[in-house]
Amino acid sequence: MSDHIYKHIELTGTSTESLEQAIRNAVKRASKTVRNMRWFEVTDTRGHITEGDVEHWQVTIKVGFTLNE
Amino acid sequence: MSDHIYKHIELTGTSTESLEQAIRNAVKRASKTVRNMRWFEVTDTRGHITEGDVEHWQVTIKVGFTLNE
Amino acid sequence: MSDHIYKHIELTGTSTESLEQAIRNAVKRASKTVRNMRWFEVTDTRGHITEGDVEHWQVTIKVGFTLNE
Amino acid sequence: MSDHIYKHIELTGTSTESLEQAIRNAVKRASKTVRNMRWFEVTDTRGHITEGDVEHWQVTIKVGFTLNE
Amino acid sequence: MSDHIYKHIELTGTSTESLEQAIRNAVKRASKTVRNMRWFEVTDTRGHITEGDVEHWQVTIKVGFTLNE
Amino acid sequence: MSDHIYKHIELTGTSTESLEQAIRNAVKRASKTVRNMRWFEVTDTRGHITEGDVEHWQVTIKVGFTLNE
Amino acid sequence: MSDHIYKHIELTGTSTESLEQAIRNAVKRASKTVRNMRWFEVTDTRGHITEGDVEHWQVTIKVGFTLNE
Amino acid sequence: MSDHIYKHIELTGTSTESLEQAIRNAVKRASKTVRNMRWFEVTDTRGHITEGDVEHWQVTIKVGFTLNE
Amino acid sequence: MSDHIYKHIELTGTSTESLEQAIRNAVKRASKTVRNMRWFEVTDTRGHITEGDVEHWQVTIKVGFTLNE
Amino acid sequence: MSDHIYKHIELTGTSTESLEQAIRNAVKRASKTVRNMRWFEVTDTRGHITEGDVEHWQVTIKVGFTLNE
Amino acid sequence: MSDHIYKHIELTGTSTESLEQAIRNAVKRASKTVRNMRWFEVTDTRGHITEGDVEHWQVTIKVGFTLNE
Amino acid sequence: MSDHIYKHIELTGTSTESLEQAIRNAVKRASKTVRNMRWFEVTDTRGHITEGDVEHWQVTIKVGFTLNE
Repeated sequence: MSDHIYKHIELTGTSTESLEQAIRNAVKRASKTVRNMRWFEVTDTRGHITEGDVEHWQVTIKVGFTLNE
Repeated sequence: MSDHIYKHIELTGTSTESLEQAIRNAVKRASKTVRNMRWFEVTDTRGHITEGDVEHWQVTIKVGFTLNE
Repeated sequence: MSDHIYKHIELTGTSTESLEQAIRNAVKRASKTVRNMRWFEVTDTRGHITEGDVEHWQVTIKVGFTLNE
Repeated sequence: MSDHIYKHIELTGTSTESLEQAIRNAVKRASKTVRNMRWFEVTDTRGHITEGDVEHWQVTIKVGFTLNE
Repeated sequence: MSDHIYKHIELTGTSTESLEQAIRNAVKRASKTVRNMRWFEVTDTRGHITEGDVEHWQVTIKVGFTLNE
Repeated sequence: MSDHIYKHIELTGTSTESLEQAIRNAVKRASKTVRNMRWFEVTDTRGHITEGDVEHWQVTIKVGFTLNE
Repeated sequence: MSDHIYKHIELTGTSTESLEQAIRNAVKRASKTVRNMRWFEVTDTRGHITEGDVEHWQVTIKVGFTLNE
Repeated sequence: MSDHIYKHIELTGTSTESLEQAIRNAVKRASKTVRNMRWFEVTDTRGHITEGDVEHWQVTIKVGFTLNE
Repeated sequence: MSDHIYKHIELTGTSTESLEQAIRNAVKRASKTVRNMRWFEVTDTRGHITEGDVEHWQVTIKVGFTLNE
Repeated sequence: MSDHIYKHIELTGTSTESLEQAIRNAVKRASKTVRNMRWFEVTDTRGHITEGDVEHWQVTIKVGFTLNE
Repeated sequence: MSDHIYKHIELTGTSTESLEQAIRNAVKRASKTVRNMRWFEVTDTRGHITEGDVEHWQVTIKVGFTLNE
Repeated sequence: MSDHIYKHIELTGTSTESLEQAIRNAVKRASKTVRNMRWFEVTDTRGHITEGDVEHWQVTIKVGFTLNE
């Protein structure tokens, strides 16, 4: 792995179900245009509230992917 | 939305089930006295351990709500 | 509790299921050699991506335990 | 000043004009219910974008005020 | 403790004597109106200087208390 | 808003006039190639000095925009 | 520029007008004794409140200047 | 000192007396099993509250010690 | 320089030789597709270990470049 | 106070007695050459350990003073 | 890799030669007692000065290693 | 060492060769006017890019020195 170069992008995914699903939604949407994604790191966890309950979860992640040679 | 003023409060919710439920418990309890809550941001995620396993989850959130005119 | 001394260790647990299970895996493995664990705090939440989806979750926690007198 | 106790609250003010006006709006709204406010500290500066331009400014401040004896 | 909800407030206490007394002054003043305070965390330690010596100590704490059911 | 995915980019705008204009310049330039920008957050405020006065302001912002479905 | 050495100093400027003027006041005062100032970075933005309105702005900056050979 | 290797451990000491005594209690307990401790750094200062007063102080320190050759 | 707009990207370079070479590898790879790069800032320094020795260095940098008018 | 300009310096004081005395020692030493010191903020609290006990306390403070007109 | 549990330790290595050699010295010394080390992260870079020149480099790293099943 | 008072200054050194040389250049230049420098801590690592390669390294350090009695 020692000669690889990685680039990072930051995304926010949302879900009405769970924190994990919010992250999965962001990763899946990004995979339409970005290849070789390898890892993510959570940088912010938020959510929206409607009528006194959590309406949806909102997780921001930094994603790293290998740059093609 | 440009003329709104928001106030923030910080709460910790607990749950034996999941991180999401700990947040929901805090939001629901606050909704008894605070109206117009709009969003939250997680600022700390902790838990208590009993006999080598997680006994309950403990999530601290900052909640923003609109001040009535 | 006022005369207790605590020590902290930092662990990373992984799981293909959920963030909660990744934390539980780290706590359970540590309980084989560390006694009197009392609480944990999440310090980092990451994951690995394979073929455009999250392959496993990876959560780093700081664990506090009481030092035996 | 050595015997005073202060309490802090966190507010977000908004304005279509300027960063300074967003802060002033938050302070003026709070002064309807909070007395003896003494200082503020900016903790976050954000804004909303509409059609490629800044639509309004959004500044979060921590405000300190003296607790009545 | 797993079903409790906590709220946090931020206070600054002052004292001409010591850091510990500045914290105690803030806690005692808050106890006049807030019940069920459980813990505090120091977030800022400052002081005022007069004629080349420390005139008083000023400690900011975040205090957590249980919300009544 | 619960099914949206957002991407963030980081920009620095400059202006000889004001902090607000430096932000506006960055947002306007980005709007030539990025659509659906929704909000920004200031992450750094700097400036250059010439002959003992501020020559221009330099503000770095993180901008969030909706990814097209 | 590769052989230059820079030194940094930290200043707080105040103004009843605006954030920009508070920074300009600090830079102008420093230019009486410091030469070759090149840039600044804002590290803290505060203000004082009198009778429910902002009385003056207070901005802390780190200033870099070239050390004479 | 240039060939030494140091290891760090993190401890929390408690005391009903003072912040200094809480630190001393942690250092003394650790000295039963760790040799060659050289310095500490405070990373967190907390305390527990009972009946509106500080019941005990709780200080977390990072301790560095020389690894035996 | 007062009318320029900059964009930032984040990259990780690796090298078996040195920290400097890891940064150079990231900058050189990026220069194949990004023009007008002006500066970088190190945000993370890591490495991989094999058989008790550093196998390669891994440095993450934020790179700023001028947006074409 | 609205036309004042402040400068900050950073000092570390030491004491074998207490955290408060370490701060006082730094302020008193600085007062030999710096006039018009107004406040300080603690930025680091450390200490040296000898034979399993704290040998002296070491507190780093940022001190603000008014620049003469 | 999804079922692994990692533990982290923090070390400081020193060298009169270079930053890289200071890190290598810490990793090599740790490998005498710790097996399965996988990666490190730099958390602090310091050095000692003698007679106006750097006498040795001092780098603090957090090291992660796999816990044996 | 328990009665010493230290002052800190912040410097940026540059070098076309290496990170270590950039730090050495800052320390050597400062030693012309500052005596009794004891240690440094790296607070920022940056560099300038020309034609797709690193043109020079730029390291900011905080330097501590003993104040003369």
